[in-house]
Amino acid sequence: MPHILSTSQDDFEARFAALLESTREEDADVEAAVDEILADVRARGDAALIDATRRHDRIELTAATLAFTTEEIEAEIARVPVAEADALRLAADRIRAYHLRQLPEDANWTDEAGARLGWRWNAMGAVGLYVPGGTASYPSSVLMNAIPAGVAGVERMVMTTPTPDGKVNPLVLLAAKLAGVDTVYRLGGAQAIAALAYGTESVARVDKITGPGNAYVAAAKRRVFGRVGIDMIAGPSEIVVIADGSNEPDWIALDLLSQAEHDAKAQAILITTDPLFGEAVADAVADRLRTIERREIAGASWRDHGAIITVHDLGEAAVLADQIAPEHLELCVDEPEPLAANIFNAGAMFLGKWTPEAIGDYVGGPNHVLPTSRSARFSSGLSVLDFMKRTTLAKMTPGALKAIGPAAETLARSESLEAHGLSVRARLARLNEPAP
Amino acid sequence: MPHILSTSQDDFEARFAALLESTREEDADVEAAVDEILADVRARGDAALIDATRRHDRIELTAATLAFTTEEIEAEIARVPVAEADALRLAADRIRAYHLRQLPEDANWTDEAGARLGWRWNAMGAVGLYVPGGTASYPSSVLMNAIPAGVAGVERMVMTTPTPDGKVNPLVLLAAKLAGVDTVYRLGGAQAIAALAYGTESVARVDKITGPGNAYVAAAKRRVFGRVGIDMIAGPSEIVVIADGSNEPDWIALDLLSQAEHDAKAQAILITTDPLFGEAVADAVADRLRTIERREIAGASWRDHGAIITVHDLGEAAVLADQIAPEHLELCVDEPEPLAANIFNAGAMFLGKWTPEAIGDYVGGPNHVLPTSRSARFSSGLSVLDFMKRTTLAKMTPGALKAIGPAAETLARSESLEAHGLSVRARLARLNEPAP
Repeated sequence: MPHILSTSQDDFEARFAALLESTREEDADVEAAVDEILADVRARGDAALIDATRRHDRIELTAATLAFTTEEIEAEIARVPVAEADALRLAADRIRAYHLRQLPEDANWTDEAGARLGWRWNAMGAVGLYVPGGTASYPSSVLMNAIPAGVAGVERMVMTTPTPDGKVNPLVLLAAKLAGVDTVYRLGGAQAIAALAYGTESVARVDKITGPGNAYVAAAKRRVFGRVGIDMIAGPSEIVVIADGSNEPDWIALDLLSQAEHDAKAQAILITTDPLFGEAVADAVADRLRTIERREIAGASWRDHGAIITVHDLGEAAVLADQIAPEHLELCVDEPEPLAANIFNAGAMFLGKWTPEAIGDYVGGPNHVLPTSRSARFSSGLSVLDFMKRTTLAKMTPGALKAIGPAAETLARSESLEAHGLSVRARLARLNEPAP
Repeated sequence: MPHILSTSQDDFEARFAALLESTREEDADVEAAVDEILADVRARGDAALIDATRRHDRIELTAATLAFTTEEIEAEIARVPVAEADALRLAADRIRAYHLRQLPEDANWTDEAGARLGWRWNAMGAVGLYVPGGTASYPSSVLMNAIPAGVAGVERMVMTTPTPDGKVNPLVLLAAKLAGVDTVYRLGGAQAIAALAYGTESVARVDKITGPGNAYVAAAKRRVFGRVGIDMIAGPSEIVVIADGSNEPDWIALDLLSQAEHDAKAQAILITTDPLFGEAVADAVADRLRTIERREIAGASWRDHGAIITVHDLGEAAVLADQIAPEHLELCVDEPEPLAANIFNAGAMFLGKWTPEAIGDYVGGPNHVLPTSRSARFSSGLSVLDFMKRTTLAKMTPGALKAIGPAAETLARSESLEAHGLSVRARLARLNEPAP
C-alpha cells in the first residue's frame, strides 16, 4: 500500500513531513575500493585500465582497443532496426532544437564612469560522458548529455561505457554518433572516471564528466570533483502528478508507474482534489501492476514510497508540490498554466492531460537529466550552460580609475589589504602628476 | 625566490607541469569534529547552537539573542566612518548595476509539431550567507554574495557571522544592510552551517548556503550539500599577469602582491615577453616586500608559489594562461582585446594597464567570488544564476502527441520501460478511437 494522506487529517503535517524526510538514498560502502582504483589508474595509466577491465568486464583490451574504431561503431549501428533509428533521430533533432535556444549571450557595455564591463561565455574544452552498461544503458541519456555539450560548442566530446563480455548496446553508439561524440571508450566503473579525470597514455583527460552511473561511478565522480567538473550525483527518480477528478485513472496510473518502474527507490506521488479519483487511480495502479514487465520494481516503489494525497483545492496542491520540489511534475488539469505559475520548485513541468512524463524522457525537447531528492529548490536540469563557463571582463580608463579607484583604496584599507590599495594608489599617483 | 621559467628552457614543459600540479590545498583533519557538531545541532537545535557558541566565541546567547535586532545593527553601523560608508555604497551600487544585467529570460514557444515548450526561471526561496569573523571578515564579500541573491529575487536572505567575545565588524553589518539581508545571526563555524541546513527552533532553514569560511565551515558545507545547495569550496587565490616590457615594474609588483598578501598559499604568476622586465618586477616585489604590512604572508606566497615565466610572444602567453586557468588574469598590454579573445579559461579578466585586479575585488562591478585551483576550465564566478533555478515546460496537444508520441513509445520499448510506453499508448489509443 502506498502512503494515503489527506490535508483533512489532523496529523497531516507530521505525515507529510515524514514522507518528505524518508530517505531513499543508497549508502553503499564503496569508498575504499574506489580510492584504490583511482590511485591505480593515476599511477599506472593504461595498464591499470586494462587490468580493471579484465577483472570487471571479462575482456582483454590493449592500448589500441581501449576505444572503438569508426568501423566498429558503424558495424554496430548497422544492426539498429530502422524504426528505432528513426525514433532516435527524431528525439535528437527535437532535443537539439530545444537546447539551441539556451545559448547564452555575451555582454559588453561602457558605464557612466567610463569603465568598460561585460562577460564572455566559452564552451569547455573537453567533456566526458559516462554511460552505464547492461539494463541501465539508455540511448536517450546519451542524447540528453551529449547534445547540450555539442550545442555549447565543446571541442572534444568523449564517451565511456563498459562492454561486459564485449557486448555493447548498438543504440547507445548510434546516439553517440547523432550527438557528435568523437571517441567511445570500452571502459566502465571507477576506472573510466579515473581515466577521464587524470588522463592516461591513451585517454586524454577532460574538463568535466557527466552522466549517470552506479555507486562506484558516483563515488569516483565525487572524488575527482575539483580536478574536473561533474554534474549532479542523481538520487532516485520522483514524480508528482496533480490531477483533478476529470482524468482517466488508468492514464494517471501509468504515469505514476513510469516513474516507479525505474527503481524500487523511485517515488511516485498523486495529489488530487477528488478522493474518489484517488481511489480509482490506486485500483488502476494495482491492475497494471499485475501485468507490466517491471512489476516487481514498480510494485516495490509504489508500496514503499508511493503516496496519494487528497487536498481541498489546487492551491493546496501547489503548496505541497513546492515543498516536495519534485524532479517531474505533471499538471493534469484543464487549465494548467495558472497552476504552473504558482509552483516554483520543480525540475520539469508537464502541462495538461496530453503530456505524459514519458514524452519528456525521450522526445519532448527539454532535458531529462533533472534535480532529484528535493534539490529542485536550488538546482536545475542539465542545460547548455553546464558545458560553458563565463569570464567576466573589466577595463578601466584613466578617467574611470580616477572616478572609482579611491573607493577601492578606502575599502582595501578597511580590510587591511595594503598591497591592494597600493596597486590602485600607484596608478592614481601617475594620473595626478603634472603633465611633463 | 619564486619559480623562474622560460619557454626557451629545454625542460620548460616539465617545469611548467610541476608548477601546475603543485598542490596548495590545505588538508585539515576536521571531518569528525564537524560531523559531531552537525549531529548535535540536528538533534538539539538552539541549545546546541548556544553551547557551541559559548565554547567557540565565549559569549552566552539565548534564543532571543541568536539574531541581531535592527537597533543593534543600526548602533553598530553608526560607528562606520563616513568615507568607508560612502565607498561601500559606491561598491554596492556598481555591483548591483553589473548583476542586474545577468537576469535570465524566460522562454515559451510553439514548435512545428504543435508542442508548447519553454522554461521559467525562479529565484530560490531562502539563501544563507556565511561571513567569517576576525581578520577574514570582508565587507566586500558580503556585497559580492548577497547582492546577486537580491537581484535574483530571493525572498529571504539571512547572514551568519561569528562574534568572538561579542565583537562584530560594523562594516560587515552595513554591507548586509546595503545588500538587503533580512536577518543576521551571531553564529559561526560548522554550527552556523548546520543551523542554516537543518533549521532550529529559532533559525529557519535555507535552500542554499554561500560564502567563504575556514576548514570547519568548508567541511560542514560539503556535508550538507544535497540537502541544501552550496557554492564552490574556494581554494587559495591566484593571479596571472601577462605584461609586455612597456609596463611599470612597481605597478605589476603590487598587482602580484595584492594576490600574495591574501594567503601564504596564494599564487601570483607573471608571464612576460621581456626577460629584463621580469627581473625588474622581481626587484620591485623584493622592494615592496620590505615594507608592506602583510609582508610575511605575501613573502611566503611569492617565495613558495610565485613564478615569473618568460615567453617569446603573446601567443605563447595566451596558451600558458589557458593551461593555468587562473582565477584572475590581468592583460597589461597596449591592445588587450585581441589577446583576451584568445584566452578561454579565466574567472575574471582585467584589461589594460589601468585595471589593477584590486578594482575587481571592490568596485569594478563583476563578482569577486571566482573559480580557483584551475577550475575556471569548467566553472564560473558567482552570478545571479547561482541564486535561481530553471523549470522546463512542455505541453502537448493531441496533435503534437500524435506526431511525436510514437517515437517515444519506440524508444521506451528499446529501453525496456513498458509503463513509459503505455502512458503514451493509452492516450494515443483514445485519439485513434472513432468519434462518437
